[in-house]
Amino acid sequence: MYNIINSTDIEYLKSIVPADRIFVGNEINPDYHHDELGGTEAAPDVLIFVNSTEEISKIMTYAYKYNIPVTVRGSGTGLVGAAVAVKGGILLCTSKMNRILELDTDNLTVTVEPGVLLMELAAFVEENDLFYPPDPGEKSATIGGNISTNAGGMRAVRYGVTRDYVRELTVVLPNGEVQVFGGKIVKNSSGYSLLNLMVGSEGTLGIITKAVLRLLPKPTKSVSLLVPFDSMDDALDCVPLIVKTDTNPTAIEYMSRDTILFSEDYLSKKFPDTSHPAYLLLTFDGSSDDEIEKNYSKIADLCIVNGAADAFFIDTDERKKSVWSARGAFLEAIKASTDEMDECDVVVPRNRIAEYIKYTHIIAKELGVRIPSFGHAGDGNLHIYICRDGATDKMWEEKLKKAFDMMYSKAHEIGGQVSGEHGIGFAKKGYLKESLGDTQIALMRGIKSAFDPKCILNPDKLF
Amino acid sequence: MYNIINSTDIEYLKSIVPADRIFVGNEINPDYHHDELGGTEAAPDVLIFVNSTEEISKIMTYAYKYNIPVTVRGSGTGLVGAAVAVKGGILLCTSKMNRILELDTDNLTVTVEPGVLLMELAAFVEENDLFYPPDPGEKSATIGGNISTNAGGMRAVRYGVTRDYVRELTVVLPNGEVQVFGGKIVKNSSGYSLLNLMVGSEGTLGIITKAVLRLLPKPTKSVSLLVPFDSMDDALDCVPLIVKTDTNPTAIEYMSRDTILFSEDYLSKKFPDTSHPAYLLLTFDGSSDDEIEKNYSKIADLCIVNGAADAFFIDTDERKKSVWSARGAFLEAIKASTDEMDECDVVVPRNRIAEYIKYTHIIAKELGVRIPSFGHAGDGNLHIYICRDGATDKMWEEKLKKAFDMMYSKAHEIGGQVSGEHGIGFAKKGYLKESLGDTQIALMRGIKSAFDPKCILNPDKLF
Repeated sequence: MYNIINSTDIEYLKSIVPADRIFVGNEINPDYHHDELGGTEAAPDVLIFVNSTEEISKIMTYAYKYNIPVTVRGSGTGLVGAAVAVKGGILLCTSKMNRILELDTDNLTVTVEPGVLLMELAAFVEENDLFYPPDPGEKSATIGGNISTNAGGMRAVRYGVTRDYVRELTVVLPNGEVQVFGGKIVKNSSGYSLLNLMVGSEGTLGIITKAVLRLLPKPTKSVSLLVPFDSMDDALDCVPLIVKTDTNPTAIEYMSRDTILFSEDYLSKKFPDTSHPAYLLLTFDGSSDDEIEKNYSKIADLCIVNGAADAFFIDTDERKKSVWSARGAFLEAIKASTDEMDECDVVVPRNRIAEYIKYTHIIAKELGVRIPSFGHAGDGNLHIYICRDGATDKMWEEKLKKAFDMMYSKAHEIGGQVSGEHGIGFAKKGYLKESLGDTQIALMRGIKSAFDPKCILNPDKLF
Repeated sequence: MYNIINSTDIEYLKSIVPADRIFVGNEINPDYHHDELGGTEAAPDVLIFVNSTEEISKIMTYAYKYNIPVTVRGSGTGLVGAAVAVKGGILLCTSKMNRILELDTDNLTVTVEPGVLLMELAAFVEENDLFYPPDPGEKSATIGGNISTNAGGMRAVRYGVTRDYVRELTVVLPNGEVQVFGGKIVKNSSGYSLLNLMVGSEGTLGIITKAVLRLLPKPTKSVSLLVPFDSMDDALDCVPLIVKTDTNPTAIEYMSRDTILFSEDYLSKKFPDTSHPAYLLLTFDGSSDDEIEKNYSKIADLCIVNGAADAFFIDTDERKKSVWSARGAFLEAIKASTDEMDECDVVVPRNRIAEYIKYTHIIAKELGVRIPSFGHAGDGNLHIYICRDGATDKMWEEKLKKAFDMMYSKAHEIGGQVSGEHGIGFAKKGYLKESLGDTQIALMRGIKSAFDPKCILNPDKLF
């Protein structure tokens, strides 16, 4: 179906990309065969560090003509193999397209290339007293990757997800044409939203080469509240009560003592309190001390009335750093605790989280595997890790499949979806199909065909 | 291409829909030949007041099999002919599917049928101390229609548009299959967002039969600020300055004295002040008096420093009603001032509004037509009306075309889009094509084909 890259192809690609940005065959660092989680591995034939829309357009025009598969990669921090060149061909890496092109303070937008890292963007806008709210855990991910997975993060409770901050995308289509979707505008009802279709499409419909992102004025104050509970149920039962108030929390994270202990070990840093089995960690931000104080006091009271053992107000930079760096290290800490792991990133209705986590405990017991988890309690998005812990290949494969089957089927049963923010990529295709059914997969295939009739862009992903 | 409805078809439809909900040929009230603006007229062969997902599914299964065009209509408050059965066939009216099905206070959602009116929804959630933020001017529009046009409204500055509040849609596809897109979830990265594709698709991809909408806690206080200026430029130059502050205004509306005077005449009610040529009307809401006061005082000061003649604080219910009912009556007042009119609903970058409005004044002068306008200054969405004022058919047609050509081409030139919230429907197809170009229209056609290969659902709309 696809053409194997030959010497003529290489010659052409080398004619449009300088030698220091193109790597062929064995010259390619094996890091580019997989993403962060590493479950999906494949070697591209050519790796190109692209540098401009025009260059990408030329490459795609050629690849489209000669039926060569192309996959796009940012920082490689993905967890589902979306940026792995599973059909070989060309891997385009956007990490050198990392310029911040414009800050428009009238329209409150920033224009960036796709390879800008989330942490670079955050630092840049903060210096300018502005704020880019999406806050996924992985700060070294690229903005292109964040848009392609509709990344969520901690602040979704108050501020929403990446989708809510994408105003305009410049996109190279699979055939090399360059198009601009959306605009520097706040409302739009001008045909199907191709912009929203691009967001979360995991590099299968077009290649994002420029993004105009919406910013907000920077909140000047932020405080956190750490609330210990004697049981997970008590903690999670408080979440809908909190969300119903007018206190507008920025983040509501759930963490169990077990997970905190991993993190303490991993970071060799003490967490302020580990004497209780369950915790909620909340943030409140705004521009007025009084307002924030009113809000967190109200929530502290509400939690204590509803079973919290205490409520620790966290305002110094040092204590804030201590709790949030622990929270930020959960993934790495769990990863370090085992030889191999795989993850499940389901999202369920907010009021079903406790039920869902308990179900993962049942699975763990039933299959005899360790399944630590933590979660964005405020938005129903859980991160659940199945740890190999030295199991044989056969056992691991078997148990992983069983655990995933049970977890995704439970998520579907209670009105959830396969992925809240990590995406489907290559690893979760089977579960997406089971969750959405043949009709929706067929609609998605139809959309894919409209953009990419030869299916050369990031083939074999999503469905 | 399509089959003409015959007596066998009528017989079948009458076998699944009771006689009091189905009308054939001359039995159909001519109100159902057009929408609110009335520029597009066509008679359906059959009008059915549908009552359930199952009924719609049966009708679509039949229509798909026999190639009969189907158009869906809510309250008929559209302005671009999207709900007119331009190819005849079946018109499905959702006005009897107006049940509020569930209020989920844990997940802060309300589940409604598509025929629920915006004002009914607003009243229901308010009674329950909750808040559905989208606030289009036309309160008797249906929620189905609001979703289908991604309706915006006054509060978009702070709260966003309809798209931001749609969590889940139950949809009957053109072939009669019933599918659920999205879920009662806050994040989602599970394949292409078919949910977001449905929003704003103007009834061309599927029929919405149930919607789960996101709610917020109800703000307990709201005040308005009316700020007079000595020129439009001064007023509109303040808008980016206001948006940049941390005061989070809910609405920022621009109005000229001329438009206010129309409205005074139309309502026979006095506006608090008409001594200045230009006004900004702002709203601030929240749950704390102090916070709101801090915010509106800051903005009043900012406006006065930047050229405002004064700043009237509007807090009593009576005064609030007086200014906002004037604002709400603009469309009707302009409509009442002329024999016929057509509208343009462009959206432009926020900092280009003044330039754009001035351009409409140039067009008015050049063509010798009256072109009143008003606008959502905070989000760049303008409503511009071209008034016939007794022109002959030929003159009207000519001037209207010229005015539209100039306006849409200017919007495109400064980075705007054809429609901010009214949609494209039948009336604006040509301008959408000009604005987006052949490639994007082809992508949209491809998407349409994936959902509706026989093109029986709301044919001849959008492109």
